[in-house]
Amino acid sequence: MSKIFSIIGRDKRARAGEVQTIHGVFPTPAFMPVGTLASVKTLSPVDLDDCGTDIILSNAYHLSIRPGEDIIARFGGVGSFMGWRRPILTDSGGFQVFSLAERRKISEEGVIFRSHLDGSLLNFTPERSVEIQEKLFSSVIMCFDECVSSPADKEYVANSLERTIRWGLRCKAAKRDNGQLLFGIVQGGTYLDLRGISAEKTVMSGFDGYAIGGLSVGESQSVMYEVADYTAGLLPEDSPRYLMGVGTPEDILTGISCGIDMFDCVMPTRNARNGLLFTSKGKLHIKRKEYEKSDLPVDSVCNCYACKNFSLGYLRHIYKAGEILALRLNTIHNLTHYLSLVKGARSAIIEHTFDDYKREYLHKTARGDGGEHINDS
Amino acid sequence: MSKIFSIIGRDKRARAGEVQTIHGVFPTPAFMPVGTLASVKTLSPVDLDDCGTDIILSNAYHLSIRPGEDIIARFGGVGSFMGWRRPILTDSGGFQVFSLAERRKISEEGVIFRSHLDGSLLNFTPERSVEIQEKLFSSVIMCFDECVSSPADKEYVANSLERTIRWGLRCKAAKRDNGQLLFGIVQGGTYLDLRGISAEKTVMSGFDGYAIGGLSVGESQSVMYEVADYTAGLLPEDSPRYLMGVGTPEDILTGISCGIDMFDCVMPTRNARNGLLFTSKGKLHIKRKEYEKSDLPVDSVCNCYACKNFSLGYLRHIYKAGEILALRLNTIHNLTHYLSLVKGARSAIIEHTFDDYKREYLHKTARGDGGEHINDS
Repeated sequence: MSKIFSIIGRDKRARAGEVQTIHGVFPTPAFMPVGTLASVKTLSPVDLDDCGTDIILSNAYHLSIRPGEDIIARFGGVGSFMGWRRPILTDSGGFQVFSLAERRKISEEGVIFRSHLDGSLLNFTPERSVEIQEKLFSSVIMCFDECVSSPADKEYVANSLERTIRWGLRCKAAKRDNGQLLFGIVQGGTYLDLRGISAEKTVMSGFDGYAIGGLSVGESQSVMYEVADYTAGLLPEDSPRYLMGVGTPEDILTGISCGIDMFDCVMPTRNARNGLLFTSKGKLHIKRKEYEKSDLPVDSVCNCYACKNFSLGYLRHIYKAGEILALRLNTIHNLTHYLSLVKGARSAIIEHTFDDYKREYLHKTARGDGGEHINDS
Repeated sequence: MSKIFSIIGRDKRARAGEVQTIHGVFPTPAFMPVGTLASVKTLSPVDLDDCGTDIILSNAYHLSIRPGEDIIARFGGVGSFMGWRRPILTDSGGFQVFSLAERRKISEEGVIFRSHLDGSLLNFTPERSVEIQEKLFSSVIMCFDECVSSPADKEYVANSLERTIRWGLRCKAAKRDNGQLLFGIVQGGTYLDLRGISAEKTVMSGFDGYAIGGLSVGESQSVMYEVADYTAGLLPEDSPRYLMGVGTPEDILTGISCGIDMFDCVMPTRNARNGLLFTSKGKLHIKRKEYEKSDLPVDSVCNCYACKNFSLGYLRHIYKAGEILALRLNTIHNLTHYLSLVKGARSAIIEHTFDDYKREYLHKTARGDGGEHINDS
């Protein structure tokens, strides 16, 4: 493997680094906004830039169904297609093995899905997933894996992770030498011994980076932290580590303290569309009556377009009126909050003040407006 | 009346001018994007600027219900509230007399509405409409009028227009001397003699500008053109003329040739959200299969953000996938097309080439892609 990851700062186990891709470098820790269908919902590429985005995530399964990877290949890949000229990581379809559980059948060969759009049968294999992701021309290809929900029977998890190892080797064998990175995925559910086996074998297989999959799928927060912490410690120091589908700001800060470098989650974008906003003083729900007459911004320390130009009163009005602009402004705010959080973490790691940074953030944000609970699904 | 309208160019009856308001000057001919609820649907103020917007339209009836004019007054008016620091015209609620016909009762005093939101009873009078629009602090207040649908009984129309004259005088009497402009509205349905009576009496009342109301409400295009043409000729040369709720690009060019200076319509924005795009080669529907693999822009001569950065193929994909970004990009394109059309008309008037400009536009756009028909409601 060529050296694609440079660590430029450390604070205990937390790392500040850079990942080199064919679409340029992205700094770590990195949070990847989710653009499942080649659009980070409500945002344009200019908006993503303005929020401080360095890398986004898209999805092989969804794009293969609509509009189809061959169409996207004609446009030069998903980045060219959507006008995002910087790094993109594509999920392999493995998470859909989990989330569309009632619509698929798993075998050693791969997974047969029933399309969530038209019910047609789709055959996903490691080779097919890599082929799709090569046509999408993402910067980072994820191995095709099985993500098991929690709780799960230990024997099932043990067999599943072995199959994921074999699938990872098939992905590696299938992948062309075209500069796209390939990340392996460690599974093993909540069983630390199985995580150990999975990590060892995945690292033995050899990938450009290593993901921790199968967390935030039903287990408690403390178990998630324990497994992430344990697993991260088993992964190579000189490769990027990615905690898939996680999470809250607290989850991300905790992951960073465990030595994890990359995160993705729909939480900032989906919650934005549901009116829940992350601020430096905790979460608030924009539809609350108390904001009706407020000329204050959502967050006085935030530099996003929404906070610099609009009041809580206006944002509440357009949210309640069902105006589409509300969804976009909320999304711009939440993503800016998340991306500022990881950028701040990166600076703190370099300055060896990450523990203080994390503690202060969690202290300040411990109480929100008492509005609706976060939607983390 | 102080001189708020300057004519800087003429070509036959078409005029290029400038209207001075407390929120700055706007050039004419002007097209006003519709922002009923203090948001031009899907767009931010920066987007409006980028599309070439000089003045927008908002609505006294809707804003008085939600969030309420007193709340908007606290923010300094609808412009400050929504972050649009340039001219705004507010509709008086008169059009809702027409469009919510089954929900109201008209008397000499005014109109009792049943709110479209919660069913509560609302009492709209000329005085109340002016009060609301003063609290909204728009640049241009419209008189409260009755807009009669077509066809309508002549006696009803005759009585209605006389009441609209009396209501106009009440609006004028109620209005404070605070710099907001007040426009009168000529009614009279499709009866040229009644239009003549209404125009004469409205002009006698004396307003900053004059609107032609009650068109594009059921009559044929040729009747609309005949009435607009006849009525515009009865209005003062030295005041701005506004054809309300109109219309297609052809309607606007025809209105300009009749000496009309201002237009508003939901057509570019609503059609955008329905996937119908206006181009220099006619209309196209973005969802058509033929665009699936196209890397061309919607309109190669358009300078909007959508045309400069995205392909037909991508715009089709995100539209079909239900992505919110599609609605915004389509809206940016259609508004840019409309606003470029009136800006081009203005230049052509100044250069005395307006007839050629109009003829060429209509010739080039006569055929679209054969897609869905325009939605002009």
